[in-house]
Amino acid sequence: MKKLRVGVLGATGMIGQNYVFLLEGHPWFEASHLIASPASAGKKYSDAVAGRWHMKKDIPQNAKDLKVCSITDVENSKRNCDFVFSALDSDIAKEWEEKYAEAGIPVLSNASTHRHTSDVPMLIPEINASHVDIIPIQRKNRGWKKGFIVVKPNCSLQSYLAPLYALHGKFKLRKAVITTMQAVSGAGHPGVSSFDIIDNVIPLIKGEEEKSEKEPRKILGKIDGNKFVYDESFEISAHCNRVNTIDGHMACVSVEFEKKPSREEILKSWKNFRGVPQELKLPFAPEQPIIYREEANRPQTRLDRDNDKGMAVTIGRLRECNVLQWRFVGLSHNTVRGAAGGGILNAELLKAKGYL
Amino acid sequence: MKKLRVGVLGATGMIGQNYVFLLEGHPWFEASHLIASPASAGKKYSDAVAGRWHMKKDIPQNAKDLKVCSITDVENSKRNCDFVFSALDSDIAKEWEEKYAEAGIPVLSNASTHRHTSDVPMLIPEINASHVDIIPIQRKNRGWKKGFIVVKPNCSLQSYLAPLYALHGKFKLRKAVITTMQAVSGAGHPGVSSFDIIDNVIPLIKGEEEKSEKEPRKILGKIDGNKFVYDESFEISAHCNRVNTIDGHMACVSVEFEKKPSREEILKSWKNFRGVPQELKLPFAPEQPIIYREEANRPQTRLDRDNDKGMAVTIGRLRECNVLQWRFVGLSHNTVRGAAGGGILNAELLKAKGYL
Amino acid sequence: MKKLRVGVLGATGMIGQNYVFLLEGHPWFEASHLIASPASAGKKYSDAVAGRWHMKKDIPQNAKDLKVCSITDVENSKRNCDFVFSALDSDIAKEWEEKYAEAGIPVLSNASTHRHTSDVPMLIPEINASHVDIIPIQRKNRGWKKGFIVVKPNCSLQSYLAPLYALHGKFKLRKAVITTMQAVSGAGHPGVSSFDIIDNVIPLIKGEEEKSEKEPRKILGKIDGNKFVYDESFEISAHCNRVNTIDGHMACVSVEFEKKPSREEILKSWKNFRGVPQELKLPFAPEQPIIYREEANRPQTRLDRDNDKGMAVTIGRLRECNVLQWRFVGLSHNTVRGAAGGGILNAELLKAKGYL
Amino acid sequence: MKKLRVGVLGATGMIGQNYVFLLEGHPWFEASHLIASPASAGKKYSDAVAGRWHMKKDIPQNAKDLKVCSITDVENSKRNCDFVFSALDSDIAKEWEEKYAEAGIPVLSNASTHRHTSDVPMLIPEINASHVDIIPIQRKNRGWKKGFIVVKPNCSLQSYLAPLYALHGKFKLRKAVITTMQAVSGAGHPGVSSFDIIDNVIPLIKGEEEKSEKEPRKILGKIDGNKFVYDESFEISAHCNRVNTIDGHMACVSVEFEKKPSREEILKSWKNFRGVPQELKLPFAPEQPIIYREEANRPQTRLDRDNDKGMAVTIGRLRECNVLQWRFVGLSHNTVRGAAGGGILNAELLKAKGYL
Repeated sequence: MKKLRVGVLGATGMIGQNYVFLLEGHPWFEASHLIASPASAGKKYSDAVAGRWHMKKDIPQNAKDLKVCSITDVENSKRNCDFVFSALDSDIAKEWEEKYAEAGIPVLSNASTHRHTSDVPMLIPEINASHVDIIPIQRKNRGWKKGFIVVKPNCSLQSYLAPLYALHGKFKLRKAVITTMQAVSGAGHPGVSSFDIIDNVIPLIKGEEEKSEKEPRKILGKIDGNKFVYDESFEISAHCNRVNTIDGHMACVSVEFEKKPSREEILKSWKNFRGVPQELKLPFAPEQPIIYREEANRPQTRLDRDNDKGMAVTIGRLRECNVLQWRFVGLSHNTVRGAAGGGILNAELLKAKGYL
Repeated sequence: MKKLRVGVLGATGMIGQNYVFLLEGHPWFEASHLIASPASAGKKYSDAVAGRWHMKKDIPQNAKDLKVCSITDVENSKRNCDFVFSALDSDIAKEWEEKYAEAGIPVLSNASTHRHTSDVPMLIPEINASHVDIIPIQRKNRGWKKGFIVVKPNCSLQSYLAPLYALHGKFKLRKAVITTMQAVSGAGHPGVSSFDIIDNVIPLIKGEEEKSEKEPRKILGKIDGNKFVYDESFEISAHCNRVNTIDGHMACVSVEFEKKPSREEILKSWKNFRGVPQELKLPFAPEQPIIYREEANRPQTRLDRDNDKGMAVTIGRLRECNVLQWRFVGLSHNTVRGAAGGGILNAELLKAKGYL
Repeated sequence: MKKLRVGVLGATGMIGQNYVFLLEGHPWFEASHLIASPASAGKKYSDAVAGRWHMKKDIPQNAKDLKVCSITDVENSKRNCDFVFSALDSDIAKEWEEKYAEAGIPVLSNASTHRHTSDVPMLIPEINASHVDIIPIQRKNRGWKKGFIVVKPNCSLQSYLAPLYALHGKFKLRKAVITTMQAVSGAGHPGVSSFDIIDNVIPLIKGEEEKSEKEPRKILGKIDGNKFVYDESFEISAHCNRVNTIDGHMACVSVEFEKKPSREEILKSWKNFRGVPQELKLPFAPEQPIIYREEANRPQTRLDRDNDKGMAVTIGRLRECNVLQWRFVGLSHNTVRGAAGGGILNAELLKAKGYL
Repeated sequence: MKKLRVGVLGATGMIGQNYVFLLEGHPWFEASHLIASPASAGKKYSDAVAGRWHMKKDIPQNAKDLKVCSITDVENSKRNCDFVFSALDSDIAKEWEEKYAEAGIPVLSNASTHRHTSDVPMLIPEINASHVDIIPIQRKNRGWKKGFIVVKPNCSLQSYLAPLYALHGKFKLRKAVITTMQAVSGAGHPGVSSFDIIDNVIPLIKGEEEKSEKEPRKILGKIDGNKFVYDESFEISAHCNRVNTIDGHMACVSVEFEKKPSREEILKSWKNFRGVPQELKLPFAPEQPIIYREEANRPQTRLDRDNDKGMAVTIGRLRECNVLQWRFVGLSHNTVRGAAGGGILNAELLKAKGYL
């Protein structure tokens, strides 16, 4: 199979680098077109990121010599990409993502810009793979033939939404109180000042609580006619904190369902949970999307974030709650499952479904 | 005024050191009798803690040359102490605290051993100063003339209990879901392995959630006859996490009252909150026991733990909750307000009330 | 005594905040004139630093309501300041410090701009207080009547230069190999990205090694005619590293003298070392400028940086060196002794010597 | 090829776990015999390490169900192991390693016990592979037929010794001043207290400086008759510090040779450096044993410790030294190259040379 030619919008930033890094050796996709601001355009990628390459391993060999293209040259991207990942900041995403889609290039975005656009799906493939069905409608709405926009949700909710969804169908989620302890990589680079986080906890991440509370409604929602209707059957309340960790967002979750599940029902639901990515054996799909650890002191951020290459959600400490019904702790890797890895899984789903 | 002669049981451990450290220059008390295991007995205090003095400043000059006394020599302590602080581990506290009290020495303990003993008060002087009235009953129950045992609660609840209590009288606390992010000093020394906490969060502190949930019932309870009855009118559910900070326990609190207070009522209750220690102008009493910070990103562990010499609780981020009624963030210094400083404030209360 | 009216150039930045913070309650000086870029001018100081006040305690009460003045309004500063501390970045310092001095305002600078200007003294008052004698010459060189410029050296060398100087007179320093482990506050705010320093060491701080090697030559140099001649009698080689600490620069020092001192001679020289600030009993002068700790594992960054309010240098681990003659470890507080505290001590010296 | 049956002495401790972890899937060796104190004997390995497994991934599947054997049952080990890795503490190593060797079991030790035993080789295979030739002599000295003892050096010197050795042959190392910044995993588990290292540097690791200075003499020494003679032609002086990192020891090195090499000669020597493990293509041999990074701010602990699976030494910042001749920074992974990985490479060398 010939690999699809992938463009990365915002390829020099931290999420862009994650895409380049994680796509190395991907069986279906090749990050062959690296797009950045006009200031970086024309440089070799290795020069463009010199002194600010933040991944654990070196720049993939084949990416080093790629010439960075300007975001303004949409035609060039159109000729050279089968689709693009957008790792743009939200304000720039607003300007460019629609232009790319309009030009016929499918855009898979990490930005928050279009998360609540009514005909744009916000995908976690294990949860709402069927939301891709909005794409023909989106194209129709906008008069686009080939391009479309698909987004992924905020990283903070990845550590608890799949475990809640695994129970939602049968027991009906009603209320959840969530406190997150989020890693600094979530703020990009330079992101959080070291002076602010050493020996400290910062109990605010701007906009994060609102995203954590609202995005699940769309993800668990349905296509109704030419737009999404949100699931208003539950309420989430989130406290979002920044803590002194590199990678990995942890969430302490207290939850209530319409029908209280038993401990065994919960553990069984989590153990057996599989989604479309697992059925389709997508390359980035974790084998076991929800890993429950029996040890009393797990998950731990450093020890569990890399489970199944950072794509699994690891949970533990299921116990009854004095106020709601159940409590547990969830963890996911914010820059893999919560960012570029999640984006790649979306692309794999779209490819498998014939949209790429 | 002649200072009272204070003994410290477990003077070489980390909490014991905190007592020696914080009592330096105290206007009423002098840490003149340092008590430890027979292994340390007879040594100069500076030798006994050589290489393991963990305070920010040097050993107080007057403590350096004190000869450490053996815990087994109760008679010696009886001759030389007006009362003792107990910084013993719980299992050792079980063995010795009653012996000291029986010998006529008032014992103010940090250990968890007697927290739920029915005639032992668990004091936060701003909240339940009247609980000292159990002391004559305790003495009578046990046939003790001069000795008694008083305890302080666990450090984890100090960051939220006073703020909740300030509202409880008028609005009646019903439910609270709490997530703590606790500093490593709470585990003593050596306590948490550095290998376990660098770039990590540990979502378990053994026994801490149970303490956080149950101790408030006694603290907010009442004396009924010869024992305490607990306040069963509310439910607390706690997640307790260890994070990578030296000092300072933070809590994210979601709360519901019988009667929902308005934002103004809450802020006013906190601002005006004063307790017996403030009325009596006790030396360790913080001027403003609950400090509310208006900035959106406060309290922060490193920036706010030392407010009013570590004795104030600092809170912020009051906002409505989607699931319960209100949310806020609280912070207190675990080794000052939550340990030795709290113990000293208890002693000041007892002195002012004539029990010492 | 009426306090001198002090201006702070760059009052909203991190070093500027340190000046405002440390000058609170100063017996001679009052930070009454806070100067910043035109963008901040006209705002209340508390508004100008809202959300970015980085000190451990709140903004001093008297500073909160001061109206920030524009750096461009030199006349205003001239009317309202007896002298200014400059906490400007080097490039801006280049533009403004001479203008202020020319206008008749003595400038005490933290910037590197004039450190090697031939008639500007670079002061560590315990070492080279006599260098203030260049001031009349500087004024004459430039035709200034009242204004002048004085600078302080880089923070990195404070942890080893005083200990070396204490031995230099008698034994003659010849060679020193130095490795520093420097705190993140040295880079200001936001400074070092948390993503870059958690679980990491960065073995480069741009320009720091050159400063560490060259500045000591001027500090230990002499006035010769209308300029300084540098002390070329020794060589320093420095490795400068950034480590994961908030405050406190540590240095591992290996050193050789013309005449090898004995262990006793070294310890005695350090113990007895006093400088002009101690003789004059300047308010910010540490009582014991060089504190030697006998414990094998001291100094430690967190435990010793605050010694004598952050103004003392703490050293330890004196032992023979296999390659040069002696080894030791030094530590000083980079934002106190190494920045604003050092600047204030310079001002006190200049006041005592009649230059302010 | 049938895999050799490998025993691990001290399999439940942190280095022992590293052996079990790193040997998973090894082409030549299988960790089939896990040996610990009598207290653990008889338990399943997964039970014996429950709650204290410290590796990044789970216990290898095949190790989970292995029954832990008692160190005292030497006969059992003799029947079931072709050789053993010893991850014992030095004091226990003293008691048991010779017993195992005497019983005919080759012992490859991480302990410091036999590092200066005159007929025991201390191997870094890239440097002194020929030192295995002492084994027949050792056997003869002691009357052993099959067993022998081989050790690996301390982890701290791995970050600088290979780079110095690569130049020693041609230019003759004379003097080196070294400062290390070492990770907490070097102290095992629980090792360094978190309270001691957060926001701190500890300038002492007991015994580490002596090892760093003395062990290189034996490693670079020669077999002379029935024992090793040490290389006394150079002097190393080391400062060893503990810093707040999980894994990875960094060293700042200043060095002088008999004949000063040029920059080009140094870089070429490093680039071309290969040893016996590379020639023999041993499975754990890094392809490029010394990686020189051109970027001014590399190596960095977190970014470079895992290079070539943690077996390469990464260096950078080569520049002239004002006091000696050259300066550079080196880094190696202390628990891989510096501990279990280095031990496995030694075993591979011994297997290739016919001693296993």
